Amino acid sequence: MKFATLPDGTKDGRLWIVSRDMTRAQPAIGAHTMQELMERWDEVEIQLEMEYEAVNNGLGGGFEPAAALAPLPRAWQWLDGSAFDSHGALMEKVFGLEGAFKPDFPFMYQGLSDRFYGPTQDVRFPTEDDLIDFEGEFGIITDAVALGTTATEARTHIRLVVQINDWSLRRIAPLEMKAGFGWVRAKPACAMAPVAVTPDELGPAWRDGRVDLALNIWWNDVKFGAANGYAMSAGFDELIAHAAYSRDLVPGTVIGSGTVSNENYREVGSSCIAERRGIEMIDDGDAKTGFMRFGDRVKMEVFDAAGDSVFGAIDQKVVKA
Amino acid sequence: MKFATLPDGTKDGRLWIVSRDMTRAQPAIGAHTMQELMERWDEVEIQLEMEYEAVNNGLGGGFEPAAALAPLPRAWQWLDGSAFDSHGALMEKVFGLEGAFKPDFPFMYQGLSDRFYGPTQDVRFPTEDDLIDFEGEFGIITDAVALGTTATEARTHIRLVVQINDWSLRRIAPLEMKAGFGWVRAKPACAMAPVAVTPDELGPAWRDGRVDLALNIWWNDVKFGAANGYAMSAGFDELIAHAAYSRDLVPGTVIGSGTVSNENYREVGSSCIAERRGIEMIDDGDAKTGFMRFGDRVKMEVFDAAGDSVFGAIDQKVVKA
Repeated sequence: MKFATLPDGTKDGRLWIVSRDMTRAQPAIGAHTMQELMERWDEVEIQLEMEYEAVNNGLGGGFEPAAALAPLPRAWQWLDGSAFDSHGALMEKVFGLEGAFKPDFPFMYQGLSDRFYGPTQDVRFPTEDDLIDFEGEFGIITDAVALGTTATEARTHIRLVVQINDWSLRRIAPLEMKAGFGWVRAKPACAMAPVAVTPDELGPAWRDGRVDLALNIWWNDVKFGAANGYAMSAGFDELIAHAAYSRDLVPGTVIGSGTVSNENYREVGSSCIAERRGIEMIDDGDAKTGFMRFGDRVKMEVFDAAGDSVFGAIDQKVVKA
Repeated sequence: MKFATLPDGTKDGRLWIVSRDMTRAQPAIGAHTMQELMERWDEVEIQLEMEYEAVNNGLGGGFEPAAALAPLPRAWQWLDGSAFDSHGALMEKVFGLEGAFKPDFPFMYQGLSDRFYGPTQDVRFPTEDDLIDFEGEFGIITDAVALGTTATEARTHIRLVVQINDWSLRRIAPLEMKAGFGWVRAKPACAMAPVAVTPDELGPAWRDGRVDLALNIWWNDVKFGAANGYAMSAGFDELIAHAAYSRDLVPGTVIGSGTVSNENYREVGSSCIAERRGIEMIDDGDAKTGFMRFGDRVKMEVFDAAGDSVFGAIDQKVVKA
């Protein structure tokens, strides 16, 4: 199934069910909002599958992905991992953190979740001097996950897969990281691509709790990266189990992969500017690519084997707050 | 004004207005839930002041603080500071982090906010081996705070003052801190004392965006500490401004002081076990006080100059999950 949330004047928006080809949609009847869907998934799943079949068969009206809110416009919990080791290694280089402590558990922080930007909303920052960067990620949304849930058990709790842009301020990020408390000022609200999909929609590209597809990124219409999501050192199932070690996960918990990154980054490119700068530091001794300026745009989109968009596009402009 | 939230079968509970002496209460009419109150404060304040006067004059029924939920049973955002320098210094000792990076901004992390335990709810942990500790704190709840709000402007956004127990797992906390991503597994849900109060209720004890009162703590009925809340190196107004640097703060944002701690900790005691262990390490070479065991209780309560309870008591038992 595919879902989007369209504006209706409320903070949570209205849940719509979207056709497989993303050309048609209609308001969901089984659940009014995405949050309600995550709380009542088991009860309403069969109803929604029937609605999905109907919209695939021509029911509903035209769907305009760019008009959507984030599929979950606000969440009770957003936990972002950092599961791509090649990203971690490059960020150590950029931040001057070589030799930093490596835990024997997945990296994860709790981030701002009271708002996820829609896919085409402008993103506000105080100043370019904070070194504005995008971070392309995959994410999942869970239903209720009990404390102590194992990675194997966690797989059935991955109800939806989403695509995320985790906005970051690189001047502040290493300082907050060195303080050990994680990120507050360096990580304002993230954005989500317009459509959330059930894992089965990904077909063979959903493997081992990972998305085996490239995340295409353009910065001001210039192709920037196409790293594949499969290279996570811990899958989403393991990230869920990590998070649920000492807490119940509330329905509608969003868990992120961290910046998608591959070892062959020189061929596939990167999913954030800081990584490219790390590569430049390795290859040329210093970083020459600058960060984003007000007015810059970033676009992120994922295509399946047939060349069709999976989540719709994130296409955002950076503006002064 | 004084507020509590009582169970009504919903996740947010029902907002009640509580008499100054905390013996009487009645359901609030101006707002149905604490979250609604924080979203509509300016609209409903006068109405609620009239309701408060009525309950102080004998309207309503008996109030049983121990039956209350947290004043805000779930929040869209919980940002916890660490504003007591003597706490920071002792924790460095305990965690072996002497010489760690000291930022020129307040320490702050984003924590689990989808649930705050009520004042007498049992707290579930996977194992005693994680080294279970309480942390007594003060906190505030804000209405909407716009990105870029200054510390001076922030004062009017401090709508309510609360008392918090920030549960912590000390085996995990230093590992997550060294990883730089802040705490996920080490910081499950916090608890709140039953009553939230407007700053004016504190009289002269509300000074410079700080609570100038002692936080009394008993561990299994033995007095453990009575540190004063005024010693924050950054007041709540400054913590708000720090948080709002690059984000709008959603109404109902809860901001914590960090563990209340004073330089004369040998006289006043501590607000967490780890601190006492740090003092023992300094004084005796090693820590002899153990952490909490299943079945242990912790009680926390604040009294005003007249000896009356300000927020009601937190009184929780630790149990196996």
